Amino acid sequence: MHLGSAWYPEQWPESRWPRDLELMRETGFTVARITEFAWSRLEPADGVFTLDWVQRVVDLAAQHGVAIVLGTPSAAPPAWLTFAHPEVLPQHEHGHVQGHGARCHYRAGSPVYQSYSNRIAGEMARRFGRHPNVIGWQIDNEYWRMSRDPETTAQFQGWLRRRYGTLDALNAAWSGAYWSQDYFAWDQIEAPNPGANPGLMLAWQQFCSHLYVEFQHGQIQAIRAHAEARQWICHNFHPNDDFDREAIGAELDLVAWDAYIHRTPRFVPGENAHDCDRIRGLKRKNIWIMETQPGTVNWSRLNLHQPQGQMRTMAWQMVGHGADAVLYWQWRSAPGGQEQYHGSVLGQDGEPRPRQVEIARIGADFAKTSALLDGSTPRNQVAILDRWRDRWVLRHQPHHHAFNCVEHAQSYYAPLQRAGVTVDVLDRHLDLMPYRLVIAPHLHLGDDMIAFALHAFVAMGGHVVLGMRSFFKDDENRLAPERQPGPLAELLGGRVRDHYTVEASLSVAGDLGAGRVRSFAEDLETTSPETQVWLRYDPAATAEAGWLANRPAVLHRRVGSGSITYVGAWLDDALADQLIGRVLALARMEGHLRVPVGVEVCARWQGERRILIVVNHTDAAQVVPLPQPMRDHLGDRVSSDQIELAGYGVAVLTTV
Amino acid sequence: MHLGSAWYPEQWPESRWPRDLELMRETGFTVARITEFAWSRLEPADGVFTLDWVQRVVDLAAQHGVAIVLGTPSAAPPAWLTFAHPEVLPQHEHGHVQGHGARCHYRAGSPVYQSYSNRIAGEMARRFGRHPNVIGWQIDNEYWRMSRDPETTAQFQGWLRRRYGTLDALNAAWSGAYWSQDYFAWDQIEAPNPGANPGLMLAWQQFCSHLYVEFQHGQIQAIRAHAEARQWICHNFHPNDDFDREAIGAELDLVAWDAYIHRTPRFVPGENAHDCDRIRGLKRKNIWIMETQPGTVNWSRLNLHQPQGQMRTMAWQMVGHGADAVLYWQWRSAPGGQEQYHGSVLGQDGEPRPRQVEIARIGADFAKTSALLDGSTPRNQVAILDRWRDRWVLRHQPHHHAFNCVEHAQSYYAPLQRAGVTVDVLDRHLDLMPYRLVIAPHLHLGDDMIAFALHAFVAMGGHVVLGMRSFFKDDENRLAPERQPGPLAELLGGRVRDHYTVEASLSVAGDLGAGRVRSFAEDLETTSPETQVWLRYDPAATAEAGWLANRPAVLHRRVGSGSITYVGAWLDDALADQLIGRVLALARMEGHLRVPVGVEVCARWQGERRILIVVNHTDAAQVVPLPQPMRDHLGDRVSSDQIELAGYGVAVLTTV
Amino acid sequence: MHLGSAWYPEQWPESRWPRDLELMRETGFTVARITEFAWSRLEPADGVFTLDWVQRVVDLAAQHGVAIVLGTPSAAPPAWLTFAHPEVLPQHEHGHVQGHGARCHYRAGSPVYQSYSNRIAGEMARRFGRHPNVIGWQIDNEYWRMSRDPETTAQFQGWLRRRYGTLDALNAAWSGAYWSQDYFAWDQIEAPNPGANPGLMLAWQQFCSHLYVEFQHGQIQAIRAHAEARQWICHNFHPNDDFDREAIGAELDLVAWDAYIHRTPRFVPGENAHDCDRIRGLKRKNIWIMETQPGTVNWSRLNLHQPQGQMRTMAWQMVGHGADAVLYWQWRSAPGGQEQYHGSVLGQDGEPRPRQVEIARIGADFAKTSALLDGSTPRNQVAILDRWRDRWVLRHQPHHHAFNCVEHAQSYYAPLQRAGVTVDVLDRHLDLMPYRLVIAPHLHLGDDMIAFALHAFVAMGGHVVLGMRSFFKDDENRLAPERQPGPLAELLGGRVRDHYTVEASLSVAGDLGAGRVRSFAEDLETTSPETQVWLRYDPAATAEAGWLANRPAVLHRRVGSGSITYVGAWLDDALADQLIGRVLALARMEGHLRVPVGVEVCARWQGERRILIVVNHTDAAQVVPLPQPMRDHLGDRVSSDQIELAGYGVAVLTTV
Repeated sequence: MHLGSAWYPEQWPESRWPRDLELMRETGFTVARITEFAWSRLEPADGVFTLDWVQRVVDLAAQHGVAIVLGTPSAAPPAWLTFAHPEVLPQHEHGHVQGHGARCHYRAGSPVYQSYSNRIAGEMARRFGRHPNVIGWQIDNEYWRMSRDPETTAQFQGWLRRRYGTLDALNAAWSGAYWSQDYFAWDQIEAPNPGANPGLMLAWQQFCSHLYVEFQHGQIQAIRAHAEARQWICHNFHPNDDFDREAIGAELDLVAWDAYIHRTPRFVPGENAHDCDRIRGLKRKNIWIMETQPGTVNWSRLNLHQPQGQMRTMAWQMVGHGADAVLYWQWRSAPGGQEQYHGSVLGQDGEPRPRQVEIARIGADFAKTSALLDGSTPRNQVAILDRWRDRWVLRHQPHHHAFNCVEHAQSYYAPLQRAGVTVDVLDRHLDLMPYRLVIAPHLHLGDDMIAFALHAFVAMGGHVVLGMRSFFKDDENRLAPERQPGPLAELLGGRVRDHYTVEASLSVAGDLGAGRVRSFAEDLETTSPETQVWLRYDPAATAEAGWLANRPAVLHRRVGSGSITYVGAWLDDALADQLIGRVLALARMEGHLRVPVGVEVCARWQGERRILIVVNHTDAAQVVPLPQPMRDHLGDRVSSDQIELAGYGVAVLTTV
Repeated sequence: MHLGSAWYPEQWPESRWPRDLELMRETGFTVARITEFAWSRLEPADGVFTLDWVQRVVDLAAQHGVAIVLGTPSAAPPAWLTFAHPEVLPQHEHGHVQGHGARCHYRAGSPVYQSYSNRIAGEMARRFGRHPNVIGWQIDNEYWRMSRDPETTAQFQGWLRRRYGTLDALNAAWSGAYWSQDYFAWDQIEAPNPGANPGLMLAWQQFCSHLYVEFQHGQIQAIRAHAEARQWICHNFHPNDDFDREAIGAELDLVAWDAYIHRTPRFVPGENAHDCDRIRGLKRKNIWIMETQPGTVNWSRLNLHQPQGQMRTMAWQMVGHGADAVLYWQWRSAPGGQEQYHGSVLGQDGEPRPRQVEIARIGADFAKTSALLDGSTPRNQVAILDRWRDRWVLRHQPHHHAFNCVEHAQSYYAPLQRAGVTVDVLDRHLDLMPYRLVIAPHLHLGDDMIAFALHAFVAMGGHVVLGMRSFFKDDENRLAPERQPGPLAELLGGRVRDHYTVEASLSVAGDLGAGRVRSFAEDLETTSPETQVWLRYDPAATAEAGWLANRPAVLHRRVGSGSITYVGAWLDDALADQLIGRVLALARMEGHLRVPVGVEVCARWQGERRILIVVNHTDAAQVVPLPQPMRDHLGDRVSSDQIELAGYGVAVLTTV
Repeated sequence: MHLGSAWYPEQWPESRWPRDLELMRETGFTVARITEFAWSRLEPADGVFTLDWVQRVVDLAAQHGVAIVLGTPSAAPPAWLTFAHPEVLPQHEHGHVQGHGARCHYRAGSPVYQSYSNRIAGEMARRFGRHPNVIGWQIDNEYWRMSRDPETTAQFQGWLRRRYGTLDALNAAWSGAYWSQDYFAWDQIEAPNPGANPGLMLAWQQFCSHLYVEFQHGQIQAIRAHAEARQWICHNFHPNDDFDREAIGAELDLVAWDAYIHRTPRFVPGENAHDCDRIRGLKRKNIWIMETQPGTVNWSRLNLHQPQGQMRTMAWQMVGHGADAVLYWQWRSAPGGQEQYHGSVLGQDGEPRPRQVEIARIGADFAKTSALLDGSTPRNQVAILDRWRDRWVLRHQPHHHAFNCVEHAQSYYAPLQRAGVTVDVLDRHLDLMPYRLVIAPHLHLGDDMIAFALHAFVAMGGHVVLGMRSFFKDDENRLAPERQPGPLAELLGGRVRDHYTVEASLSVAGDLGAGRVRSFAEDLETTSPETQVWLRYDPAATAEAGWLANRPAVLHRRVGSGSITYVGAWLDDALADQLIGRVLALARMEGHLRVPVGVEVCARWQGERRILIVVNHTDAAQVVPLPQPMRDHLGDRVSSDQIELAGYGVAVLTTV
């Protein structure tokens, strides 16, 4: 278990470095990430490498017991490079070039840029690939930029040619007959504009991910040529990027994430938990939180500071979801540059800010529990399928301005959290055998493989829940040729007759109780007498919903010891709790603990030993009933039938 | 009377076509529009024409009793054309080129593009100009794009030179002395930017309309060279375009419109009625609804489906306002392409969606009433003057963020509807002799001809109502040299002293009762003792309106048996009803029926026989009193003194 | 004292001019500004000057007793110039050129444009530099445009080289190590994009101001070569520009301002007063209001007219704050051009609009009081430091979407107004000896000179109030190396521990009473036992503010007979009144009068004689107590112990 931060010694005089390292140790830090933006100081002129100062930093850190993660600096090319080789700069719409002055101003597909990036990565690895205090490498930083320049466009055309073989196949896949959009030559295909053909849009997203896979591959090879095998290689994903992260993660040893409160001014525990689970799902192994915020950021409209205690609960939540390290961004702000107001551990005078006390408490926590947690990992019987590709296409064509995949996914994730049940989140990985329940909130793009996997899973006794809009399209982003859920309709014994947009919300009622649904409403029908209707739309609904009066909204069918459930609407919290409760009961599963509202239970397993991490996300004290006596390793206490958590309190429990 | 849809057989295998046509007949369809986006399949390479499949479609449709309207495909040029001739692509601000991938990516003024468009239109006409199952032609689809490229700019300069003769005349017309905006050479004049000189802006709008007149002329000639005279030629206007539709309509046999619910998520009956009347007014004859929505669209922020019954009431409303055909867009969605989520009659599996039942009911309605309605047409004694040019300039300089010509026009249109009075809407056509009452809600750009026409109309005993801001400017978009209403001030015996913007609303009171006005308030004064003040602003008005305290807001003067009324503000509904009621009484006119709120009465005339179409736009049952016994041709019933309409009910009545 | 307007005789036939001048005299006008947009009529071709018509205008105006201010026409270059020399046009982002058709379409740094501008200015001065009816000159009009073209960029690079000497110095100043932003050559530095490095952003703003200083210098030289010394030279600043106005004002004889209601639809008296004080502070002498609105403008979303009486109160407020002239924009609208709907004195028919009566009343006021007011000027003992540079950087990085310097400055300005205390507003001018109280609401960029000046001021017995965020950064827009208020922390005996963003507001309480603060909250600490805590944050604050519970929010320390106060938050009105009341009491100062809410007292001094201008900004009558009998020179009345003002009433008082 590591605690630490990003550190930029190149921004300060060398005489200051010992003081920084002393303060890090006082804060309980055991790791620092360096150099990922330092290219202009690592290679101040083409081919001139100045790595001695890095050597001194790494050595000095070793003396202070602070391990180092080295970042390759390709996210911030120096001005000498981009001015000598302007062809490496990305282009946006209308040929607008992104120039020097910020970051990520490069094209991942540029052979020239790849050559420079690989060379600096290789030079660093040659120097530090055997340094005992370097524990790992980070490639680049938060892949982000897509470019629409001519060279990238030509690469896209080549990629399409390899994928489709013939233009006839591409035109068929993208419905070229529509609006005379047929292509007659490969070089007529350009990067999509907003509102482009959905087939083109999806292919472009996949191609851009492919570019980063290749870009990353070059740097990995350059490092591996020199680095000892014990030094792992990772990338830290942007909080909210647009790539096929599973493809990018494939060649990495470790997946890291930058966990900021990035959608709302205040922390939403369920969203962060779900995000961590998605990142962990990329490789189905533990992750690093390579950046997180020390209280606040600077880039929001409203940059609120977290309440006292929440930096700690957030850190422990992430550990509960599989993080083996938490690093704050950043140690101390540069005097200049775009992020002067971003949160930091030290103040502008180089001395600790008040928040450092709370961070140091996390350091003490980690020191106390490292032995217990080392090697432990989450292990779950529930999987959520939530793929980047579905989110891409639903964002591209939401059909309702208020539809949002993040919130919709929460309508399934949050009831599980409230039930004390922990989950894995899978993207394209489809080995479902470890699970007893699989939920797909919005599996918009169906294909035969996923249909087969879910069919087989149910046949083996598994339980499947499909959310609205599932199997609406195929994997080319085309309308599926059957009504939903297409290849699973027969298994379900039912299907979707039609779908309607809901302005505010609609009443529903049935076996799950009465409540409201929003955003969309699908009109379902049963085709088998075995299929049960769990919810129906109100007969006296709003004007538009006359079409839905008394129609089924949720279908369920038992199949042997398994089952399949189709949810045709976005359920409110109470209905979602009922639905999840029912399928958990069918799957004979229950939560780790019965937690009150606002308290979350996470689990890591050390072989067969279960370690529960209980986090109170509220500012009030909470009591959690325990099924048996347990030891709290943070509080050094044993509780028999319940444990009390202070506001923003945390407990790390094992059975006595 | 035709019912039908757009159909894209080129998107589907030929083996599917018979099933589509069978389902069309089951839905009561008698017409389909085809080929308007099929260029890439009609001419897959330059000069290579593949029209055999169209022949098979037209023949097969004939076998099923479905007549065909052929669209020329120029709204969607194929990629081979635009890549071989990139000069045909339009340019937006900053030289940004609109490329392949959507539609309307062409310049109407391009001679190259005109040549290609005319050639394909001619080829189609050569093949189908005598086909008995082809009843008409649609040129292009929804003219939309304006281009600011150098060639179009040069054409604009030439058009200006022909219009103004000398730069001195142009500089005088556009107030060149203002901000040193004088031009010293024709080639210094460029397409307007947002916030441009109002004279330039107006000229540009007129020039762009002229480009489409010429573009359309080429295709009409190409078709007429081969087509039998019985095949009419139309264009289907965009729901909300920006051109001089009267100029474009002049050479067409038939004007068609694409009636979508395009401003708000829910249907506003008065707006659609007004829109249909405006379209009918272009040629003063019946129209086609070439596209309308089967329940929902895909391009709104919130794509609501219409309530059950409203597709039918909307169709009947449009028939009531002069439509002889209603076609849905579209029959079945293409698997790919930008409009996958748009409403359609069939579902993605090719079988009818639930809404098809309601559409089939309209088909049955039309079958039942076709004989009655054939050859009938609206005929009215009230005209509304509502010109594109006034809307252009008021949108360009609204002077109040909440001023909106559509809503303002409704403040005159809706009271007439509530009174059961039907109207013609005229643009530049000024033969007012058929009318007894003429209303100009916002005749901002006055000119001598229109002043003369209104003066003569009043002198002949007609009644005129002018709304606020009338005669503020001249036809060059210059301030008129007199206070409003300029040349009609003497006839009115009054004029506008000044005008004020109103934030929320102001109180008024007088002969018309008490109420509120909004948006703008003009300070009127009488100059003749015969002129009556019908409304005055409240003496205790808001701060700004101190200027308006007790000032006249509405003036009225009897002139022989005619009258002129000037309305200096935007009246609320009750005041507007009073005003319209008064002028109707003066003109000795009354409504076709006394309709309750939410019920609309329309009238078509078969010679001297009047056919009333009564539409209940509400979901509740309504009772309409009848002045004499009438037969309802839809319900096959005769009613003596009243008729009951179910929610969303329709009746087609004639006197027994 | 002058009253007048902008007048554009070039837009009208010469035969109309006498009538305009007669109407001006009837309105009480004594001055008109002409020619500032007339270049196309002053020089209709390159080197061809047509100034005879100006001669006739100036002579005719002299006959009518209307003095003339001549504007150089460089804000609106004619088309022949920009088409012959397109390199004078400005470029925006992505190389987008601003072309002909509006105004300010020139680059201040263009030598070609400077040459043309200087030549026309010189020609005008040669002709009118000795004309007795020309009293002054206006250079250009509302400097506004910044350009990012290559030539300007090269000038920027040269300016940086002169400023920093070496790239090492520049990289150090701008934190080049951050994100590898180091520059390796001067020509790598480009104009900033949104979100650029703060050091670059600040330097660019300063450079752009420098360009206008140089541009203006050329025209001043050209005029001075011919003009008599009695003819002053001014520039009229845009209501809301982005330049270093103090630098631009340095070479001018007179500073003028264009006082429009430009931020909100309705007049905010405190903002206009503060704006006038800031403009007067540029040269610490009386100003001209070169443009103000006759009731309304045309360029707002909602163009409300001022209530009756407010044109007069606004004019008198500006006189009270040091204006010696008030000119309306404009006399009469051009028939065409972009501002047809802007307020004017005459209507479109050339006859007075109703508002002219109120303006004529101001003319009568000025005639009555000119002798009294001539040579008088404001003189104050309170100074507010409010620098453009602080506003630039706080707008660039507000850190809270609702933070706004204008409103924040009002939280100090308004309590002074309510207390009847008048102020000077200073930018970089730091001669504080005339003052007893100095307030810096947001002195974000500290430097040694300002710290020294404030230190010395306190040592001499002065009282200083610093608002939140003061001394956060240095004059390179870098984080200061000490916690706030840096060099004044020792004097204060306290400092800022940390700062927090506040979503809505927080409770505070203490010696100043109880109330609320908003936007930001700084956590203060005392380091000296002499330092008093005047306010503390509530112990039971919101979640984020747990960090602030019971922490000091306002510190105060007496230093000899002086004091320093640090305010760590944005106080509500009542707290601000308490704070200002306390420091006024310490400074032994009181207001000119005790004014009721909505009434403002201003003061001008004629030697030791004080003239009070009392303005009722409300529409209700108000009573103002008088400390001694005074004469109202407008009302021709003497009042003993109180004076009554009608709604929107004004009094000009001197002690009897």
